Amino acid sequence: MNRSNPAISGRSIGGADFLQLDPAEAPPGGLADWLTDRLRTAISTGHLPVGTRLPATRTLATDLGLSRGVVTESYQRLTEDGHVSTHGRRGTIVVAAPIGAARTTGRSRLRTPLRPPSAPPEEEKPGTTSCRYPDLNDEIFDNLRAAPARIDLTPGVPDLAAFPRSAWLRAERAVLGDLESAEFGYGDPAGTPTLRRAVAAWLAQYRGITADPDDLIIVAGVAQAIGLVAQMLDRHGIHEIAVEDPGSLGSRQHLQNWGMRTPPIPVDDRGLQVDVLRNSGARAVMVTPAHHFPTGVVLDGERRRELIQWAKDGGLVIEDDYDAEHRYDRPPVPALRAMLPDQVIYAGSVSKLLAPALRIGWMLAPPQYKEELIARKRLADLGNAGLPQLTLASLMESGELERQLRFLRRRHRTRRDAMVTAIRNHLPTATIHGAAAGLHLTVTFNDGDDIALAAAALEAGVKTHPLSWHCQLPHAPGLVLGYAARTPTEITEAIATIAKVS
Amino acid sequence: MNRSNPAISGRSIGGADFLQLDPAEAPPGGLADWLTDRLRTAISTGHLPVGTRLPATRTLATDLGLSRGVVTESYQRLTEDGHVSTHGRRGTIVVAAPIGAARTTGRSRLRTPLRPPSAPPEEEKPGTTSCRYPDLNDEIFDNLRAAPARIDLTPGVPDLAAFPRSAWLRAERAVLGDLESAEFGYGDPAGTPTLRRAVAAWLAQYRGITADPDDLIIVAGVAQAIGLVAQMLDRHGIHEIAVEDPGSLGSRQHLQNWGMRTPPIPVDDRGLQVDVLRNSGARAVMVTPAHHFPTGVVLDGERRRELIQWAKDGGLVIEDDYDAEHRYDRPPVPALRAMLPDQVIYAGSVSKLLAPALRIGWMLAPPQYKEELIARKRLADLGNAGLPQLTLASLMESGELERQLRFLRRRHRTRRDAMVTAIRNHLPTATIHGAAAGLHLTVTFNDGDDIALAAAALEAGVKTHPLSWHCQLPHAPGLVLGYAARTPTEITEAIATIAKVS
Repeated sequence: MNRSNPAISGRSIGGADFLQLDPAEAPPGGLADWLTDRLRTAISTGHLPVGTRLPATRTLATDLGLSRGVVTESYQRLTEDGHVSTHGRRGTIVVAAPIGAARTTGRSRLRTPLRPPSAPPEEEKPGTTSCRYPDLNDEIFDNLRAAPARIDLTPGVPDLAAFPRSAWLRAERAVLGDLESAEFGYGDPAGTPTLRRAVAAWLAQYRGITADPDDLIIVAGVAQAIGLVAQMLDRHGIHEIAVEDPGSLGSRQHLQNWGMRTPPIPVDDRGLQVDVLRNSGARAVMVTPAHHFPTGVVLDGERRRELIQWAKDGGLVIEDDYDAEHRYDRPPVPALRAMLPDQVIYAGSVSKLLAPALRIGWMLAPPQYKEELIARKRLADLGNAGLPQLTLASLMESGELERQLRFLRRRHRTRRDAMVTAIRNHLPTATIHGAAAGLHLTVTFNDGDDIALAAAALEAGVKTHPLSWHCQLPHAPGLVLGYAARTPTEITEAIATIAKVS
Repeated sequence: MNRSNPAISGRSIGGADFLQLDPAEAPPGGLADWLTDRLRTAISTGHLPVGTRLPATRTLATDLGLSRGVVTESYQRLTEDGHVSTHGRRGTIVVAAPIGAARTTGRSRLRTPLRPPSAPPEEEKPGTTSCRYPDLNDEIFDNLRAAPARIDLTPGVPDLAAFPRSAWLRAERAVLGDLESAEFGYGDPAGTPTLRRAVAAWLAQYRGITADPDDLIIVAGVAQAIGLVAQMLDRHGIHEIAVEDPGSLGSRQHLQNWGMRTPPIPVDDRGLQVDVLRNSGARAVMVTPAHHFPTGVVLDGERRRELIQWAKDGGLVIEDDYDAEHRYDRPPVPALRAMLPDQVIYAGSVSKLLAPALRIGWMLAPPQYKEELIARKRLADLGNAGLPQLTLASLMESGELERQLRFLRRRHRTRRDAMVTAIRNHLPTATIHGAAAGLHLTVTFNDGDDIALAAAALEAGVKTHPLSWHCQLPHAPGLVLGYAARTPTEITEAIATIAKVS
């Protein structure tokens, strides 16, 4: 690979020079594997940046002297993993770089062996930065929220200005009009039956999950779900929940504050490294398989099969399906829970669909944990508030939430595009990851200190998360940038500001 | 005292025969103490049932050959303790029997020594029943709620049919009209500043508490507050929170499920026996001083001073002010917190003011615990939902909640009166306790098995709580009967049904 000559983004690449591919390198019978791996690496290292159009399958097959089926299969796999997207006559476009490392470093470094959380950080290599944040306490987010800023690119919130205020009020008025007085009393701690039915229908339609409403527990968001699971596992003698690395700092803090150790399992461009998980000896793992936080990687088919096997061998998977409904350029990825109802505790919420301030989420527990989790929820707060549950159920049943999701997708896509364009213009050396879905994307840089950069950006009025917050292992520096809640103009200004201070 | 000749309720009692009082029994200089104690005992044992009009102070003073000031002082003390109420020309009426024991047994038996929860129950004495419930798990309430019944007298809920649906919707529409989009995002885990200000004003006006809004933490009801406190104290090495006995089973279950031992401290007709608390060695106690659950006793002045001293000597008081705004025939009792801001964690909610299903409450922590409790709340669920907080604040600020409280008081008083009348008619041997305030009253019987009685009542379509659920020490059998949520007709029918199966 000619590292000095990265592919030019924004236009089609083709011909025999394409990535200097040489089919002679492929092992016998492994042409599709080889081609997929080479393309994935090129996307990962930034040689094929987000937005690049790949050669047509017929063209590339001809150029490489391969059967067209090999190329089609390879593109298909990349599509399933969320790295490229096929748009009819517009061709096949790179939509998400898997997080790997900075461009100059290649992906092999990411395969860091599991390091227990108490061990000293590995020696830093050039172009990487180890996990650093001021202090492992929750106040980091409170402090950031309290900090004044002109433009808030904090990841994890949808377009809040799009909250369907009128529809919510209409639904609530209808609910209040019909409500029996007893519904104002103490309710079922697992949630109102009406909402549990509506969520079951939603999960079947959007997440491929067939669930009995009786198996659903309504909770105050995924944060509470994590707490309930940690409390329960602690009583079962499990004091360690492995986490993805990179992986959400917020989730990690929650687990640690409930007394759990959180050994990091590296995530590469195909998702969680299940072999490392297996070797770690952890009995439970928390994952974001449909859209990894913060890098946007989709757990690929093979890793998914490995993880399923690990679970069947006795592991417990906690699936945080935090924003899977938001996708722009890729097919939906079904939830792990759909395939593994007995080994997956599934958690989701309306925080990314409507608003975090609603504090409504749900969890689906394997049968053996259900009663215990309901008892924990009862103990936590006697159950979620009744009226908002019924109002949400009404929005789900009337199709209003679906309309909202479609509306948000269009709006978020425009904002995502604005951010990608702004990054190309103002931060041309940055690599973009995870732009095909979700509410945020991640950029990585060749070098630098992302905590200093985020601090400088905040000083200049722009809130972001440094990637370092979300990792325990050495990693390329980067920023996690939410685009969903800001207008294209704000986004462009924010990225220009970051470029100015970087 | 002539036990075979109880005072006839419903009309004035007077003359020299009144309770066969003999001032010669009084110790020198202790006339007012003596008279107060004799009257309290007569109320406690049912010789002066709820509803009885006491002799006019002038009449009694003349009959007993005492100065009128002695009688006035005695009536005043009983008024402050919530046992009698003065209604101008209607005279002084007995409004609440302190829980003591069954009529036939006198009050001394209540002074049971502290028994650790693990010790075997004391041998039962005739006319008492020890603490028994099927199993100490939370499902007892879920099961009761799920059981079908024609008339639900479960204590702890206000008139749910009176929920101000239109006012709530109006307030929410106004809130939604003005709301900044950012308010739909993740909020301050301690609660929205607007609601904290409104609650601070409410507490100043109704509970005599001067609080900085910054010291308030909005929680999902008192149950959550208890959990947060237990989690915190556990980390401080405190694994035991003494509780009142009788005392709320729900609170006790919560504490125990969070790993706390709950040694019982007996409550007599003057409230918590603080000397027993002191001897128990417990470092924290949970109390309902303004209106004891379930007996309605008000912690009297002397006990209050003793408890304050115990707290000043290093004890921590958790004050559950669960229904103090609801009072009918007695002056308001200020919260303990008002006198002891540094040693009292105060908790209250709108469950009894509006609806339990709102899941909104508040706590006031001493300065040294504040940050830790906020961190625990953040960890629990990242904070209460935003929109209902703002809607409630609007109802508080507009005076709507005050109007609702006034409306509820009138409505509840009628229902309380209906229940007292029905009990007189259908259960003439029962003693009524705690009818001067709150949403429920307690009746005790001379003998019998209250769990069997509650089961028979449920079978016949009436839900109640057996008093045994709410005690750990031997006690008179009884029922805790909520009246606030039912119409007078339902109440009369329910009491008649209980009489039929008893």
